[in-house]
Amino acid sequence: MKYLTAAAATAIDVQLMDPARGGFALSQLMELAGLSVAECAYKLLTGSQRQQQRQQQRQQVLVVCGPGNNGGDGLVAARHLHHFGVDVRVVLPKPAVREPFVSLVVQVAALGIPVAATLPSANEMRSHVGLVVDAVFGFSFAGNVREPYAAILSQLKVVEKEVSILSVDVPSGWHVEQGNVSGAGLEPTALISLTGPKECARFFTGRHFLGGRFVPPQIQRDFGVEIAEYVGAEQSVELFV
Amino acid sequence: MKYLTAAAATAIDVQLMDPARGGFALSQLMELAGLSVAECAYKLLTGSQRQQQRQQQRQQVLVVCGPGNNGGDGLVAARHLHHFGVDVRVVLPKPAVREPFVSLVVQVAALGIPVAATLPSANEMRSHVGLVVDAVFGFSFAGNVREPYAAILSQLKVVEKEVSILSVDVPSGWHVEQGNVSGAGLEPTALISLTGPKECARFFTGRHFLGGRFVPPQIQRDFGVEIAEYVGAEQSVELFV
Repeated sequence: MKYLTAAAATAIDVQLMDPARGGFALSQLMELAGLSVAECAYKLLTGSQRQQQRQQQRQQVLVVCGPGNNGGDGLVAARHLHHFGVDVRVVLPKPAVREPFVSLVVQVAALGIPVAATLPSANEMRSHVGLVVDAVFGFSFAGNVREPYAAILSQLKVVEKEVSILSVDVPSGWHVEQGNVSGAGLEPTALISLTGPKECARFFTGRHFLGGRFVPPQIQRDFGVEIAEYVGAEQSVELFV
Repeated sequence: MKYLTAAAATAIDVQLMDPARGGFALSQLMELAGLSVAECAYKLLTGSQRQQQRQQQRQQVLVVCGPGNNGGDGLVAARHLHHFGVDVRVVLPKPAVREPFVSLVVQVAALGIPVAATLPSANEMRSHVGLVVDAVFGFSFAGNVREPYAAILSQLKVVEKEVSILSVDVPSGWHVEQGNVSGAGLEPTALISLTGPKECARFFTGRHFLGGRFVPPQIQRDFGVEIAEYVGAEQSVELFV
């Protein structure tokens, strides 16, 4: 499998949004990326009989959204999960102050999805949360985790062996290429890579999905992104390698 | 079932894109609407064994795009159909000159989807086209059909009993509320209503789908739009009433 560096992932986004090449608006890409995250989360929630039983007790999905595009994907995913009939809540540690995030929060609020600045307690998460969607940091994350996100990741780490976590594109706190080098990053149950797996996915051993079914063949060729075998009209696919 | 007037459909779009209410960008709504059209077309193509056999001979999907948002939905649908593995072609009688249509054409071209200004001949359509997606006119159509669209509709009417047609939101040439009053409108095999059926759908007796899974409950209540029973993460659903 081909893995992308942070620079390659950035370059793909630039080409996708180049008016003469990909021609995409950010809002389109984020809509499709977020929808693929929601579909993947839905598969994890309803995928097996055992999970269906567990879901009856712990139905809530908690979407934890960071300050950048990864958080935007999370806000889109929360909206779609609501339409799928899932009891979804959003944790947004810092209020949205710019577009498209301000509008994405309006869209979430219009559905009556609760938005909080802080996580529920560890015990509340253990008893009520069936899945955490980790949309805190994506492929543009670098350096150290700052507050309020450091505290959020610490709180999630307390329950990460008891509550399923689906990380969006990159497990939050991981170095995009070198993995969980600090040890402070999340160890999620599942990962959904968007457009293509980042280098850090080499170090991930859980269930691995791909989303972002919109990359034109020329961009796939230029960056060596492999074409995944999506099924029918689905927007996410599990990778087995 | 509740049917929407043209004025109600316009008012729903206004509310969806009101920054303080729905908060949506046009590009988001068009992306989701077009995706639901693509999914519906895919279901029609692959839905039955008989259709699967027929599809082997006539696999092409021809997406015929008008000058407004209905045509934009068609351009989005064409792109997704390509990603679903369908041999799709676009007919765009008038070149796109403004956004978001210019970018939607760039996105289609980046996938290598052929774009023509005219329809294939009737015989070519009979032998190669498994489905026509009619994205010519939507709920904002009024008055008489002008050229080049009048000729396009006439050519499609020649084959409409032999080639399946899926109309987007409103069968092209129909009065949005009164149906095919001129007789010059298409008589499609299937219709996908977006957000809710328009008044003219009362006069439609073919397979009827709903797409546009994004309407917030308050807007549904205000306009009496019924909530359809979508399945799982699907973006389109067949209506049986």
